[in-house]
Amino acid sequence: MSFQKNIKLIIEYDGLGYQGWQRQLTGPTVQEVIEAAIAKMVSEKVALTASGRTDSGVHAKCQIANFFTNSDIPPESFKKALNSLLPPDIAIIDASYVPLSFHSRHAARMKHYRYRVLSRGHKSAFEHPYSWFIPYKLDIEKMTEGGKFLVGELDFSSFRSSSCEAKSTIKTIYSIDIFKEGDIIIFDIKGDGFLKQMVRNIVGTLISVGCGKIAPEGIKKILEKKDRRAAGPTAPAKGLSLMEIVLKDY
Amino acid sequence: MSFQKNIKLIIEYDGLGYQGWQRQLTGPTVQEVIEAAIAKMVSEKVALTASGRTDSGVHAKCQIANFFTNSDIPPESFKKALNSLLPPDIAIIDASYVPLSFHSRHAARMKHYRYRVLSRGHKSAFEHPYSWFIPYKLDIEKMTEGGKFLVGELDFSSFRSSSCEAKSTIKTIYSIDIFKEGDIIIFDIKGDGFLKQMVRNIVGTLISVGCGKIAPEGIKKILEKKDRRAAGPTAPAKGLSLMEIVLKDY
Repeated sequence: MSFQKNIKLIIEYDGLGYQGWQRQLTGPTVQEVIEAAIAKMVSEKVALTASGRTDSGVHAKCQIANFFTNSDIPPESFKKALNSLLPPDIAIIDASYVPLSFHSRHAARMKHYRYRVLSRGHKSAFEHPYSWFIPYKLDIEKMTEGGKFLVGELDFSSFRSSSCEAKSTIKTIYSIDIFKEGDIIIFDIKGDGFLKQMVRNIVGTLISVGCGKIAPEGIKKILEKKDRRAAGPTAPAKGLSLMEIVLKDY
Repeated sequence: MSFQKNIKLIIEYDGLGYQGWQRQLTGPTVQEVIEAAIAKMVSEKVALTASGRTDSGVHAKCQIANFFTNSDIPPESFKKALNSLLPPDIAIIDASYVPLSFHSRHAARMKHYRYRVLSRGHKSAFEHPYSWFIPYKLDIEKMTEGGKFLVGELDFSSFRSSSCEAKSTIKTIYSIDIFKEGDIIIFDIKGDGFLKQMVRNIVGTLISVGCGKIAPEGIKKILEKKDRRAAGPTAPAKGLSLMEIVLKDY
């Protein structure tokens, strides 16, 4: 059976209630919830391919996924109906036809992740699901200095999860920007792709720089060791959001 | 028994999980959760007095409440300990001694409420607990024009809940500002005090103006009728936040 159409979705989700993007046996995932909603609209089995998997508890402002279908339902109608069928913490921002050759993962050229740290003396009733609360002082200049060692095409073995199964540990980080907005320290990290928990391990390690446990140039040594145990702790998932995916021409 | 000290708290809470501020038989309230946390710190029974009750589901960025105690625990230590004892959706922003004569409700001079409407074609995964989603077009100019009839010292009988038990229905609204920030229409309403559900009834009625069901000058007629049935629907609680309380000198 050949599919007639390929539909691309732009998806926003609050990751708090999900075991990440990808189907799991352990609990509900964003992928299976959306696939189940699509299954209510079409008479065929549908599989979503995403630009990148997000871990359990990680949010997305702009996940991209596509699926093949023989249905004649236009994309705009998919968007409207899915937004009714889906739970309130998952929203379809856009739906459009793409060529049959389009593949969300292969099409991703740049991914932008944002990590949010609540940096003040007391907690916040509204920020707790979307940030890591750190009540001690963090030196943004030193973290920025440390982050510079991570920009470029590098071997990120020291920053991948012990359960990461990627064949290549070489990734390119284009930029790491760290700045404060009110009480929130924002880490904006852009790259061509990321290993499992790589962003959270980078942030956790830069926090160790920010509070003086690791010198900025220590980051270089950690990279060289190619050993996860050399880096700092993994920052909690809830502070992380997939902000944007830039696609190649298609 | 005379109390030695009066402590004022500034409190932030996400109202989603609570049956409002005031103790209820029907479910957990912010007041009882904080009182229970204080009770873990002191050996006496403590009662909180708030500047204003918030309804079930309404949020607060800056609720003010005070309590009397014989404890020698300094306010700053109350703040720290309470922030550990309280659930993540309630935070103590500040704690300080105030004169024994200080009473949170009597001390309030101005209250600022903010209502948030998500105004765009599709829902949002992050805004749903903090806004009312209205997918059709709203005319901000007309709503602003309608709101002008509500500014001043007026009888707000038409805008109070049928279960409101206030003796006087005369309140003063200082200003109503309506503007858009991104996809969010913000209603900033400031006044000396508000009747039960008054802000939500005002917003619901202004939305009826914004979508053309009621002419702006219709607001004047609704006020004159002094009858709740004359006004528009009650806006959902989740879009409402108590933003600021300005106190009289004390």
